[in-house]
Amino acid sequence: MATLFKDVLILDGSRVEAERGHVLVSKGRIDKILDAKETPPSADKIVSGHGKLAILPGFVNAHTHAAMILLRGLGEESPLMEWLQKKIFPIEDKLTPEYIYWGSLSAILEMLASGTTCFADMYFSMDRVADAVLQSGIRAALCRGITSGEPGKVEKSIQENLELAEKYHGREGLITVQLGPHAPYTVPLADMRKISAAAREKGLGIHTHYLETEGELKFIHDKLKLTPGKYLEEAGLLSVSQLTLAHSVYLNPDTIFAKPENVTLVHCPCSNLKLGSGVMPLETWLDRDVPVALGTDGASSNNRLDVWEEMRTAALLHKGVTRDPVCVSALEVLRMATYEGARAFGFSRKGMIREGWVADLVVVDLDKAHYIGANEENLATYIVYAGSSADIRGTMVNGKWLYRNGDFPTLDKEEIIQNAREAREAITR
Amino acid sequence: MATLFKDVLILDGSRVEAERGHVLVSKGRIDKILDAKETPPSADKIVSGHGKLAILPGFVNAHTHAAMILLRGLGEESPLMEWLQKKIFPIEDKLTPEYIYWGSLSAILEMLASGTTCFADMYFSMDRVADAVLQSGIRAALCRGITSGEPGKVEKSIQENLELAEKYHGREGLITVQLGPHAPYTVPLADMRKISAAAREKGLGIHTHYLETEGELKFIHDKLKLTPGKYLEEAGLLSVSQLTLAHSVYLNPDTIFAKPENVTLVHCPCSNLKLGSGVMPLETWLDRDVPVALGTDGASSNNRLDVWEEMRTAALLHKGVTRDPVCVSALEVLRMATYEGARAFGFSRKGMIREGWVADLVVVDLDKAHYIGANEENLATYIVYAGSSADIRGTMVNGKWLYRNGDFPTLDKEEIIQNAREAREAITR
Repeated sequence: MATLFKDVLILDGSRVEAERGHVLVSKGRIDKILDAKETPPSADKIVSGHGKLAILPGFVNAHTHAAMILLRGLGEESPLMEWLQKKIFPIEDKLTPEYIYWGSLSAILEMLASGTTCFADMYFSMDRVADAVLQSGIRAALCRGITSGEPGKVEKSIQENLELAEKYHGREGLITVQLGPHAPYTVPLADMRKISAAAREKGLGIHTHYLETEGELKFIHDKLKLTPGKYLEEAGLLSVSQLTLAHSVYLNPDTIFAKPENVTLVHCPCSNLKLGSGVMPLETWLDRDVPVALGTDGASSNNRLDVWEEMRTAALLHKGVTRDPVCVSALEVLRMATYEGARAFGFSRKGMIREGWVADLVVVDLDKAHYIGANEENLATYIVYAGSSADIRGTMVNGKWLYRNGDFPTLDKEEIIQNAREAREAITR
Repeated sequence: MATLFKDVLILDGSRVEAERGHVLVSKGRIDKILDAKETPPSADKIVSGHGKLAILPGFVNAHTHAAMILLRGLGEESPLMEWLQKKIFPIEDKLTPEYIYWGSLSAILEMLASGTTCFADMYFSMDRVADAVLQSGIRAALCRGITSGEPGKVEKSIQENLELAEKYHGREGLITVQLGPHAPYTVPLADMRKISAAAREKGLGIHTHYLETEGELKFIHDKLKLTPGKYLEEAGLLSVSQLTLAHSVYLNPDTIFAKPENVTLVHCPCSNLKLGSGVMPLETWLDRDVPVALGTDGASSNNRLDVWEEMRTAALLHKGVTRDPVCVSALEVLRMATYEGARAFGFSRKGMIREGWVADLVVVDLDKAHYIGANEENLATYIVYAGSSADIRGTMVNGKWLYRNGDFPTLDKEEIIQNAREAREAITR
């Protein structure tokens, strides 16, 4: 079945200007892109834009813990360690695989409605997260969060993560699996080396937290007597095929990566602000062409799962903090929110609107007061600064609608919300 | 005609916890607030919340230039002075009173849809802005932006501002008028003294830009040889009945106000970030009990007119920049966005949900995935961190719906957007 987007504005992170034209989606791919002056091809379904709809690549939420929507709002506005130790950890212990399934589905509702077509998730009971992913039809990069502790704990988690990869890596073209060591301060260096060796052996990427807080920088300097760059090398992390470093607030941008194309930093501006972690030097990483993607982090520390909001926050924040109104452009954050996230997790031909690329798309309604004056030339700035996810009319993965005008064709919204509500009540009882 | 909000969550900036109950609105006022357990009174119209609707006071956008929506997106991502001098000023010269009327109405559409019930506007052709205000039924605090220049210019603008006050101050209970000297660097000290003398004589407040950029601080220090506190005193600004200082990014929080209750700072976090101005020390002002309200600034430098977004940005930003996850609470930004804005411009009994107070209200739909877990105790944090203006179901001023489920009962949305679009085309041709 083919869908034609007729007379729409086409924008992605590689286009300095949007293009007005027709987009034909067929068999899950972007089959043809034609100029608006050309005669549009025929199709079973036609979405007429009249120049008032924009088509963007789907957003990639490159770092989250989806099921944490069940913990949203607990212990707000407490000091970080009190929040984690008194509120988050004790309640996480009560999460069953079933709760994680419903929590993940509920998070997927939020993400689809705000234009996310792929999310990178680090949590536990990841089989149930994979079930939620396959049921919804969204794309995901999954890893089991691995921490060390009592004897055998790290081995067990590595085993679970490898089984997850065995079972789901490449599944339906929707899922890739990474290994997910939690962070240097929760996984000793020797264990981190085991994990990176396993990743090399299996050809898997690694997704980890890195230098979210100044305390972690101090830990690497003072306890391990390493620089952050040297740590990555010593831990074997730089020799895996794909390394994703979430947060990286305190990674010095003078750090040189021998192969920057194998590394992606994930900027989570709202979470880093909310938890008082700080502001990563995004503008410098962009200047140095080190890939940076965008993530929301879990909903307990954001508290939205809305990549559009991360785009806007990133584009505003760094201008203000560096006092440079020219740094971090709308086009750069759009590319971070789409192509860079997809590439980071091994999803190829995704995140741009090009013939032959995968049809993971967001449809944006420009027929609103705040888009007066938007045109091909300035569309990226209108989207990032004036727009919001409330402007989204539809979200498509593999050419299939997963969200359209408030409805979720593959999911039972009421059932999911009801079950997530019950899970929340059970864990906070 | 009376409207009953039955079984809703009631929240405002003075309630540590929301209250579940019934709210009866009659003759433009909040007539009764009853506990949910009590029998609700009868009314012509009933809005049933089933505990899944929240009622907040309407937001006050305490600093904007509404008609600048016509200039949105022009010269984005340019250095500040290039942006102002090459893009904004030449096009502002082309704005006719008619364009300002349609631009203001279009801004009012955006503001009502995002829950704003009152806005403070500084621009020119303010008679036409007042017409837009009265036509829509929204509340507004209006001032003529006064700048000095060729001989007679400042006198002419003061005269216009005084005539505006004469004609509109107190009109239909919807409008208050202030005098609007633009800023210390555009209005010489002698002229500023004339303006504050006129304000004292007429019993009007003053709304001015103050210390938006570091350059302005340098100007006051180096050219005028004054401290910012001394400048306000010398200019006579501290002796007017109500002084509103927009931005105040570089106002040292050690500045002592003899009568802090007569002064309001307006924090415009998104605009200050986007223009690379910097970050005001909000947490310190709050600690010192100096009143602070929230504003969007004009849509050319934000680019949204959404006070909810300013609440969220304020609550996140200062935690990150100060690395203190406990500072600037959700409740504080809610109070800033409502009561403090109303109070700043002389609107009494507005901005809280109390019996006898004016029914300027926002209705929020909590029946969404991202509100799972929200309850009376944590509602403010859910609203500020997880919610967005997309959750708004209705906006009411004086007990009258001005926005409800996408419709604007007092305005012709299509006509306004069409006219604003034509105005935009005319000024950019």
